[in-house]
This record gives sequence, C-alpha cells and structure tokens, in this order.
Amino acid sequence: MDKNKSRPCEPVKASELGKWDMETDVAVVGFGGAGSCAAIEAADAGARVALFESASAAGGSTALSGGEVYLGGSGGTALQKKFGFEDSTENMVNYLLMQHAPQADEAKIRAYVEGGSAHYDWLVAQGVPFKESYLEERVVEPMTDDGLFWSGNEKAWPEIESCKPVPRAHVVQLEGMGAGAILMQHLEAATLQRDVQVHFDTRVLSLVVDDCNVVQGVIVRIDGKEVSCRAKGGVILCAGGFVMNESMLKQYAPKLEKGNYPIGNPGDTGAGIQMGMSVGGAAINMHEGFASVPYYPPASLTYGIIVNGKGQRLINEDVYHGRIGTLLLEQDAERYYMVADVDAYGTYEDLNFLGAEVAATGETIEELEQALDMIPSTLVHTLNTYNEYAAKGEDPLFHKQPEWLRALEAPFVALDFTPGRGVLMPYFTLGGLDTLPTGEVLQVDGALVEGLYAAGRTACGVPRRGSGYNSGISIGDATFTGRQAGAAAAERASKA
Amino acid sequence: MDKNKSRPCEPVKASELGKWDMETDVAVVGFGGAGSCAAIEAADAGARVALFESASAAGGSTALSGGEVYLGGSGGTALQKKFGFEDSTENMVNYLLMQHAPQADEAKIRAYVEGGSAHYDWLVAQGVPFKESYLEERVVEPMTDDGLFWSGNEKAWPEIESCKPVPRAHVVQLEGMGAGAILMQHLEAATLQRDVQVHFDTRVLSLVVDDCNVVQGVIVRIDGKEVSCRAKGGVILCAGGFVMNESMLKQYAPKLEKGNYPIGNPGDTGAGIQMGMSVGGAAINMHEGFASVPYYPPASLTYGIIVNGKGQRLINEDVYHGRIGTLLLEQDAERYYMVADVDAYGTYEDLNFLGAEVAATGETIEELEQALDMIPSTLVHTLNTYNEYAAKGEDPLFHKQPEWLRALEAPFVALDFTPGRGVLMPYFTLGGLDTLPTGEVLQVDGALVEGLYAAGRTACGVPRRGSGYNSGISIGDATFTGRQAGAAAAERASKA
Repeated sequence: MDKNKSRPCEPVKASELGKWDMETDVAVVGFGGAGSCAAIEAADAGARVALFESASAAGGSTALSGGEVYLGGSGGTALQKKFGFEDSTENMVNYLLMQHAPQADEAKIRAYVEGGSAHYDWLVAQGVPFKESYLEERVVEPMTDDGLFWSGNEKAWPEIESCKPVPRAHVVQLEGMGAGAILMQHLEAATLQRDVQVHFDTRVLSLVVDDCNVVQGVIVRIDGKEVSCRAKGGVILCAGGFVMNESMLKQYAPKLEKGNYPIGNPGDTGAGIQMGMSVGGAAINMHEGFASVPYYPPASLTYGIIVNGKGQRLINEDVYHGRIGTLLLEQDAERYYMVADVDAYGTYEDLNFLGAEVAATGETIEELEQALDMIPSTLVHTLNTYNEYAAKGEDPLFHKQPEWLRALEAPFVALDFTPGRGVLMPYFTLGGLDTLPTGEVLQVDGALVEGLYAAGRTACGVPRRGSGYNSGISIGDATFTGRQAGAAAAERASKA
Repeated sequence: MDKNKSRPCEPVKASELGKWDMETDVAVVGFGGAGSCAAIEAADAGARVALFESASAAGGSTALSGGEVYLGGSGGTALQKKFGFEDSTENMVNYLLMQHAPQADEAKIRAYVEGGSAHYDWLVAQGVPFKESYLEERVVEPMTDDGLFWSGNEKAWPEIESCKPVPRAHVVQLEGMGAGAILMQHLEAATLQRDVQVHFDTRVLSLVVDDCNVVQGVIVRIDGKEVSCRAKGGVILCAGGFVMNESMLKQYAPKLEKGNYPIGNPGDTGAGIQMGMSVGGAAINMHEGFASVPYYPPASLTYGIIVNGKGQRLINEDVYHGRIGTLLLEQDAERYYMVADVDAYGTYEDLNFLGAEVAATGETIEELEQALDMIPSTLVHTLNTYNEYAAKGEDPLFHKQPEWLRALEAPFVALDFTPGRGVLMPYFTLGGLDTLPTGEVLQVDGALVEGLYAAGRTACGVPRRGSGYNSGISIGDATFTGRQAGAAAAERASKA
C-alpha cells in the first residue's frame, strides 16, 4: 500500500495493491438502517455481502431514533388503508415536492413514493412490528405503542391547500419513545439470517479504484491490520451524516451551530461523505439540516402564537415543529416567544421536555408586552388581530387551521423560544453525496462514479430542507435507499 | 495521456505523461481580476508565469463589474485618509466578522484588512486610476467619476452600533457605470509588462498530479491540441464562480434561481471549482450568493418602508441593497412591497433601473392596504407605528438611522418588490474552494492539496453571505487573494 497518501481518505489504486486480502460481491460500509437494508437486499439478490461497521454493534443513528418511518403512496400502505386513509402516489409526490423545493430531487421523491407501500410490507416481512392502531393526537413522538400517526405538515398550510392530508408516520411498536432500537434489532436479525459477513470494530479507511476511477473495493482496518477487500459489484457507503464532526459542521453547515442537541451516533463523522468526495463524488446541500423546537406536548400550545421580539407573528403554529425550528434558525431576529393563555399553556410544566423558560406573564396583553420589554403596540395589535379572526375560526394572515384557532384570553404567558436561551433545539445534517435513485454516486458534472453507491444520510436523499422535514422521512429514506443500492450493486456484481 | 478518464476534470497522473510539452514556474488559470494579480505578483517575485485564458481577451467578470474595490484598515487607505476617514484594522475586521458570521473566515478577513491599505497603493502603482474625490450620496454605483463612496452597511444598524462608519468603496475612475473594464485594462497592461506568457483561447482541461496527489501542472487545449504544462511552483485557479452553470446552480445554490440577472461572464462555469474538487479540494459555502434589489437611486426611496404581503415591516430600509435582496430571497412570503409617499417616490420613474411596478396607490394608508388586497389593519398599524416614531427621529423596531426617518404622508404608492414579478434581481455565487489566506487549497479534513492555489470566486473568500455583502468586496477579495496566491506559488517555485 501507498504510505505517502496526502489525504486520509485518498483512494488507493488497485494496481498498487499486491493482491486482494478478501473478496466479496458487495461491500457495505456501516450497519445502521441504510446498511442493514442494503445488505439484506443484496444478499436476497444472490450476492455475497461483506458489511463493515466501525462500532462494536449494529444500530447507527437509526437505533437512536424514534423508529418512525414516513411512508405512503400507491393508494396507501396496508396500515394507512386499515384506517381508511387513501394516499395516492401523486398526492404524496406533490406534498414532498412542495416541501423540498427548490432543492427537491423529483426522481428520487417519485421512486420513494412509488415504492413506499411495498417498502412498508418489506419491513413487516423482515419482522419489524407495527401495531395496527392509529393515534390522532398531535405529538412529536407517541408515548403509546400506536402504529400510525401524523408527523409532518399534512394538516397545515400551505400543504393542505394542494395535498390531501393523510398520516404517514409508521412507528415501530414500543410503549414510550425510542422505537428505533426495536427497528434495528429486527433489521440486524434479518441481516444476520442472510449470507452476510459482518465485521464489527472494523473501520473502512479508503476506497480502492482502478486506473479509470472505477471503485473496486475498500481498505479496512481489522484488528489493527490494514486489509484490502475487493467488491465485484461495488461499495455502498451507509456511514451516516456529519453532525458529530465539528469542523465539517463549521465548514459546511455553520447555521446548525445554533442548535444545542446533535441527533446521531458518534460515528456520524462524515467519513462516508469524505470517502465519496475522494473519488469525485459531489457533496450537495451541505448547508442544510433538520432543526427543531419540539414544543408539543402539550398539543394545546398550538393554540398559542409565536412572535419575534418586535411582537410580530411569524408562522402558522400548527406546522410540524421542525418547520418552526428552521424558521428560528434562519431568521436573524433577536428573540422569539410563544405567547399562550392559561388554557393553552395547559400541562406544559408536566409534559415539557423543551426547556423553554417562562420569559414573562401578564394580566393583560399590554402588561405582557411591557414585561417582555417590547416596543409598545405591535404585540397588542398582533394578538388583537389574531383574536378577532380566531374567534371566527379564521386566520387570514398565516392560515393556521380552524382546529387550532380560538381567541386567547388573559392572563398570558410568554415562553422563551430563542435559540441559545435554554430551549431544546435538536439538529442533524441533510447534505451528502449526490446520488441517483439507485444509490449510484454522481460527480459534479452528472457523470457516475462507477462502482460506488451511497444511502441514508451519507447521501443527499429525499429530505432536503429543514422546513420540509417530517418525522420518519430520514429513516424511511435510509432504509429505502439502502435497499435500492443493495439491489443495484448486487445486479452489477452478477454482470461482472 | 489516459483516454479512459471517467471524469472530464479527472486529474492526469504525471507518471502517465510521456514528457512535459511546456514548463513554467507558476501556471495561472484565468485572466480576470484574480488571475492578472496572481500573474503580476508571481512575476515580480521572479517566477516564470504561464497564464491560460479560455476567452480571446482578458477581463473575466471583473471587467464587467462596477470597478469598485472595497478596502480599508491600517488606519485607512491613502484615499480614505485624504478625506479624513480613519479606519483601524480592528474596526474593519469587526465589521466583516459581523457581516459574515457564522460563515466568516477570520484568518482570511484579517489578512485582507491588514493588507488593504497597501493593496490600494499597489493597485495605484499598477496604473489603476482612482480620482481623489469623495461622493457622500447613497448610490448603488456612482454615475460620477468619484473615487470614494459608501457601498455597504457601514451607516446602518447593527454594524453602526459596533463599528465606526467609514466609506470603503474605492472606484476606478470613469464617468458613469462599468469602471471594471478600466480596472482590467490597467491590470492587463501591467501583466503584459511582466515576464508572463499569456495564452488566449486556451482551455485548461485538467490538473496533473504525482502519485502523492501533489499538483504538478495542467493539461491545456491550445489550437485543438492537448498540451501538458509543468508548473514547478504550482497552479493557481482563478477561473471565476459558477453563476453561468445552470446545472451546478440547481445542484448547489437553487435559491439563487429566484434571481433574474446573473452577474458574471460566460466563463463562470465552475470549471475551476470542479478542477479543485477533482484533486480533493473542498468546495464550501456553495449554497450562498449575492442577490440584490438595487432600489436606489433615487436614494429618497430609503424614506419608504418595505413590507410583506401581510403588511409587516421587515428590515431597516437604509441597509445595503444586497441585504434586502437576500432577505427577500430567503424568506418565503408571497409578496413584498416598498411603500413610499410622493416625496420619497421622488424621481423613481426617471432614475429607476429596478423595473419594480407600481402595485397600488392610495389616498390614505387604509386605501392602499385595500388596493393591495391585504388583510385589514396590519399595514395601517405598521405605518402608523413607523410614523409615530419617525416623526421623533426614532425607529425602535428596526433601527433605520435618523438620516432616513420622517413620517410618510398620504398619498402613498407601493412598488412591487416581489422576486419574479419584474423587479431586477442580480445575483452571483459566493461558494468555492476552501483556501488558506495564502490561496492554498484545502481538503475537507483541513489538509492541503499541495501545489494548488485558488483565488477570486473560484475560492470561497472574504464575502460569504449575501446579507453581509458590500459592493467591491468581491473585486477587492479577488485582486487581493490573487496576489497572495501568486506570491505563495512563486515562493514554492523558488524552493522546488
């Protein structure tokens, strides 16, 4: 091996290797949601699979998630249909296109939606349990073990104007939060049932390419030794995003630094993205991320209004919490508040995991305005205007839906939603390698990096804007694109 | 040469070349502002220089610019001092850090500011003419031939709270707009006076690297023939940004597509950035760009207020036009208006090059609100609140400075500032290769790509946010960083 590499991830030339130490059809880098699905699909297509995981166990960031899988289309998944929700492919495609424009990748969205219902069946076939029950409540993540709930902007403006609202979060069965661990238990078991060689504690150091930059395999470190592994069909990078790499975050997505709770596992160092870049893969959308102010439960806070420090209202408060977090991240106002009345405040103190402090209270809106040190009259005008219409079930300015409209009544409370002032703001990255729906990695000019695939957050997938995020879309995309890449690499191996 | 390259920009291995067709110390790619300054500086340091330009003439995008160079620091340039403007290095560093956070590169900003005054002298020494005159008026670009004017947010909030306001736009002498052509005439002449081999109509196809990925030279196409050129000291990429590459724009900076007037020359295809990426250079800040609503002259429009379609005011209207353009680009409101009274509207129709249509007029603010189809009361409240304070010379909500505050009086006019509805919105890219202040190109992990330099908009330079842009900062950065890269590559050549 070449010891003079000037880059940590610099690809090794196959011609410089003596002989291969190992050989397989498909090499998968990372044993999380994307990697397990890639391995299963490749094995089922008849390929030999080697799966390399730098940690000592399977899981990746999927295991740390809520175990939500955002799926629909083709008339609806079995679970959606069970509860009478019809979800056409066009309906869901339009919804996702609206949310991710102008970054949306229509081909990728279409493939994901067209395959969504079958993907649900596939997950069930792998043993992943979804309870056949439906939760109507507005929650960030169910505390019940229910199988289907609302996790996005389906019922909010502007989506509701153009797209029929249906719930699409399919949650792996678990009482309480964190069902991602259950999801991964089953995907791991399904992987191990196949002809998949799993190597834990094994770090992939670099890709191996031939003289035409076609990916031939990987160099991995096993037990302190560098070992070459040929992968006839190709290498699939499923090594997560880069939320845990501080310098990459600063370099590519510094706005996310306003967040205070990175979501991911310690392996989300961007190593997969860097490896893809090392052979010419284009990393796109690198500035974008998910960021949230998960302010419900209690859902009753949705009756409140979110204002900036000038007293201006900003958004329809019945949107998904990630859209609110993204707004607060991207605007430059100094302060943000949720203004609620006693009823809307409800059980906040008991249920809250948000950490937002009470900034002020007021017996009247004028008193609250003063207590918040605001310039007089704008908050008063904002609330009075809101109330005037809300009493009629209308919100002509921001289009909050009637379900969440009622006039707010004194006394009032203002919660401090300002990023950096205690409020929980989870975040993770949405940038990664540009890929085709097959997972094939693209260069900046649209040419392929032959033999290289990426899936999950190593790729830039379906979710591309924080403001367009829905809970479960990243796990959905990771598991789905893992499968596509696994199938494509297996097919390539069969022709090699 | 390897004919099986899978990437158009794929680097060629030096070991695969028979022998070099040409040899030089420093190869410069692109004969615009950055390239000319790189060539001059390298030649002055004793290096042989080969300069390759794909067009038939020098100029690049610098020749199409207003010929403004944003400079200061070290107590002030000779021109600033002449008019009594003292500008300390810390003052200007703080100003630029404020504007470009969280993307700001402090080392790069500091180098630029510390060298700013000397850079002005250097430009003068190259023969670039600056008239010793000062224009106080608020203009996008002087129609006079004056040498010094205000081209940023120096006198606007929040900068004015922390930084002493001084004018920093040094404009090359020309009656009317477009002094960039004059700037380039002089830089071209200065280049041709040196020992610089200039090749026009010559496209650089790819970089040549050794087995350790150290850049050794370039492959260029001259007269239809591919020719290799060794560059002992290194290659300097000065090939502009990517505003003219539609697919890269869509891939990396789709929000800029709201703009309708790309600023740059046809060579801004991103080829330099792509070449840097091909050897592991990290392209950063690729989503960012300059975008503007150049709404003055007449400066009197600054007395007006900018509101969204809900009637909410958005910004202190005395900021630089690029900050307003960026705001309108990044927010998702449906409509934007400039609301002015007859006095503020002033000579708009005569002087205007903005193309903003009159959306409505009103004898009263209520009438205007109605004519704009707004939900009643918010615009009325906004204007009344604005007027109440403006009459006292205050703007507690948005901090427009007293100079531009007075109560607006009926009748009113609203200009349509909504992107996509006729208003001129020029734009260009601010993403590029990550570099050190020396111009040395960095990889994603912070390691150098040895032998490779980038300057101007091929690099990600001092200007990093549309909201923090000042006219002349890109030309300033391009000419300055070109010089740094030229000096560094010449020094490397002297040691080779």
